[in-house]
Amino acid sequence: MPEKLNLEQPNVRARSTPRTRSSRECSPIELPPPKIRRGKSLRKSLRRRRTIREMSDKNLPKQLLSDLLWAACGVNRAKGPFGSVGITAASASNSQEIDVFVALEGGVYLFDARHHRLVPVVADDVRAMAISPGQGKRVAMKAPLQLLYVVDLDRLTHTSGFQEPGLQDPEVQKSYYFVDTGLIAGNVYLFAASQELATWFHNCDRERLAKGLKLRPEQRVLFAQSVGYPVRK
Amino acid sequence: MPEKLNLEQPNVRARSTPRTRSSRECSPIELPPPKIRRGKSLRKSLRRRRTIREMSDKNLPKQLLSDLLWAACGVNRAKGPFGSVGITAASASNSQEIDVFVALEGGVYLFDARHHRLVPVVADDVRAMAISPGQGKRVAMKAPLQLLYVVDLDRLTHTSGFQEPGLQDPEVQKSYYFVDTGLIAGNVYLFAASQELATWFHNCDRERLAKGLKLRPEQRVLFAQSVGYPVRK
Repeated sequence: MPEKLNLEQPNVRARSTPRTRSSRECSPIELPPPKIRRGKSLRKSLRRRRTIREMSDKNLPKQLLSDLLWAACGVNRAKGPFGSVGITAASASNSQEIDVFVALEGGVYLFDARHHRLVPVVADDVRAMAISPGQGKRVAMKAPLQLLYVVDLDRLTHTSGFQEPGLQDPEVQKSYYFVDTGLIAGNVYLFAASQELATWFHNCDRERLAKGLKLRPEQRVLFAQSVGYPVRK
Repeated sequence: MPEKLNLEQPNVRARSTPRTRSSRECSPIELPPPKIRRGKSLRKSLRRRRTIREMSDKNLPKQLLSDLLWAACGVNRAKGPFGSVGITAASASNSQEIDVFVALEGGVYLFDARHHRLVPVVADDVRAMAISPGQGKRVAMKAPLQLLYVVDLDRLTHTSGFQEPGLQDPEVQKSYYFVDTGLIAGNVYLFAASQELATWFHNCDRERLAKGLKLRPEQRVLFAQSVGYPVRK
């Protein structure tokens, strides 16, 4: 069983509650500390940045998964804006309203950036739902992992950051949470480029995923991103 | 006068038309080729990634401006997806629908990634409009430059990329162009971290900017990002 969570920090009102989920068959994964090795310069990563849709089903080693998630939206300083930790991706009023779920063959996990670990959510393989039915050739169906971007609107409306009226406005919220998703996805693209991984940001089957992940009403599935090793040709 | 533009490439139907603008007092700026020096590793850039709102009014040298814009959304390969060039930031069906306007003291320029130059738009200093009136302390009012993110909806509806129905749906368009803005802004955040610059992504006075930049109806101002040197304390 996962150990008791301690996520009740000021701006984290409504984190997913994996304790109530069907995590019987799905154990927590403690990630090794991030340790990006053989990393390229930012310049080289930018030069290599591109979408690669064809990837093999080979799993990523745990260290590489750890590094990937840290690069995406891991904690990069203890004191960020508005009294919370700082992470590698900016967010509106530092609300950190985007959760990254990691869909692996063995189940779905929530990336808990503060403790740098994966908290089990469901033991099902939902990866096929991470690519929307109409999305052309399903070239990334083999990807060993799918990152699922899920907004928790509660964290915008109850942010401990700068209290601006827009945070209560659904249209303004959209502009924030989609931009904030892009900020995380961009880190993933550059990390993939630096490590010679393949990645592709895409639509997903939002309704099936929301049910599959047993999300609360204030949570919305936004997009997904396949990550894996490129197919060598 | 700026030389004649040649931007009539397949997926660039409705680029801004600076030829018709009041560019009398505002000359084109040829940027030196990007040449990022003393750049940090991606890992170090991610570690240093943060928002810095307080910055000095010191101008960026032209080389650094060139490097910044290339990192943001410059061309990183001649052959990208769907027959267009590839750029450092992903976009929906490679529509490259986000234009980056650069607001400097002497005027506003459109970043023409294909020719890596700045095309004059208006000779006015609109930088004060790049921070919305209600945005707390106007700490970045001094920033020497503001990046203005503007979507051209025409490029989504007439993409030469994958023709999916969502590209015609205003709600789906929103999800794409805000994510795509975040992908560019994330590159700016990491570039700033790598070069010890300050940057802050924020709301702006969209209505005044749309008038000030003489945008067409299918163009929308989305967000702005201040960039400059941090104030040394």
